[in-house]
Amino acid sequence: MAIKSIPVVRDVLEESNARAAENRELFDRNGLFVVNIMSSPGAGKTTLLEKTIPALTARGLRSAVIEGDITSTLDSARLAPLEIPIVQANTEPFGGDCHIGSHLVQAALKHLDLSALDYLFIENIGNLVCPAEFYLGEDRKVVVLSLPEGEEKPLKYPLMFRESHLCLISKMDLAPHLDVDPAKFEENICTINGRIRVLKVSAKSGGGMGEWLEWLLRRGE
Amino acid sequence: MAIKSIPVVRDVLEESNARAAENRELFDRNGLFVVNIMSSPGAGKTTLLEKTIPALTARGLRSAVIEGDITSTLDSARLAPLEIPIVQANTEPFGGDCHIGSHLVQAALKHLDLSALDYLFIENIGNLVCPAEFYLGEDRKVVVLSLPEGEEKPLKYPLMFRESHLCLISKMDLAPHLDVDPAKFEENICTINGRIRVLKVSAKSGGGMGEWLEWLLRRGE
Repeated sequence: MAIKSIPVVRDVLEESNARAAENRELFDRNGLFVVNIMSSPGAGKTTLLEKTIPALTARGLRSAVIEGDITSTLDSARLAPLEIPIVQANTEPFGGDCHIGSHLVQAALKHLDLSALDYLFIENIGNLVCPAEFYLGEDRKVVVLSLPEGEEKPLKYPLMFRESHLCLISKMDLAPHLDVDPAKFEENICTINGRIRVLKVSAKSGGGMGEWLEWLLRRGE
Repeated sequence: MAIKSIPVVRDVLEESNARAAENRELFDRNGLFVVNIMSSPGAGKTTLLEKTIPALTARGLRSAVIEGDITSTLDSARLAPLEIPIVQANTEPFGGDCHIGSHLVQAALKHLDLSALDYLFIENIGNLVCPAEFYLGEDRKVVVLSLPEGEEKPLKYPLMFRESHLCLISKMDLAPHLDVDPAKFEENICTINGRIRVLKVSAKSGGGMGEWLEWLLRRGE
């Protein structure tokens, strides 16, 4: 007797990873270095890109941004003066998702000429929880943790820090005005993830931005 | 022919609302005023409670806190010196949920003597997206938006501001050190929700804390 074929419903994560693998293949084919930037709302992801991309452009390196938001095109508008390709990826039509999914990246890639790019930045939705769960096909995950958020965040939101390759402690210029100890941030980050690289930056003052640029130029090494 | 009975699987939100209604009934029976406090990570929810609860205690009003976190008991430890009942509600055993669910509040309530309380604060998980979707049985939803997060957050995360009764713009003491316009915060909040109450506070300097306390004493009127 023939074994009856059993339908398999694949789980959401498996579907998500399949799309991510397709994205990865496209990135590899085009020699792209892709960074998935994640953080709480308002930690400074867009400001970081505003300051970083011109430095890459000045070196003849071509960037594009997939700008993730639930709704609005506010961040894309802020990056428009950079005159680079930007695709706004809004999750609202997909149910207001709290993270960027690999299917949305895949849809966004159709609007980009990948062969004409060196760097692709995916600015994820401001959320220190959910985006950490999803692989998009990127080379590196970067978490931005701003000084005003407080030193204990890595201990309270461990997955994000466990999954990330690099943590940028941002808004270092505010240190004199806050009751926080930047060294304690670093200690807590490393408690959660012993292999993560940590850089202290201020997009406003420019402090630490050189090391971040170096990290990008070495493609995350 | 008899109509075959059709099984109905109720959706997650319906289950969630049923638990919330049960919580509500308990709150009503005990005359409790319940505030669900939500924000991005590090906007200052715990600090707000550290400063608010002693002011209520000084007026003979009895508070308790349900402290929501994915993992850790760090915030509960911070509130321990207040010598009030605190229940730590961690979502990690429930799959690391990015918000507090009504079932978790229900479980937490079993550890509290509600008849001995006037105020119950539910400190939600730091997340400006998902917690806005879930009614827990509370009287009022309060969103805390800190000045360093930036003025455009209400436009980018509209549901949270649409659902909340009160918005506290926090960390006002940092205003001189940031390139932000507090009036613009208020304008954007009111664009999203014309009926929301907005108060500017600094738990650090104490500025605006009197108005917040008044709002609590009037039970959100």
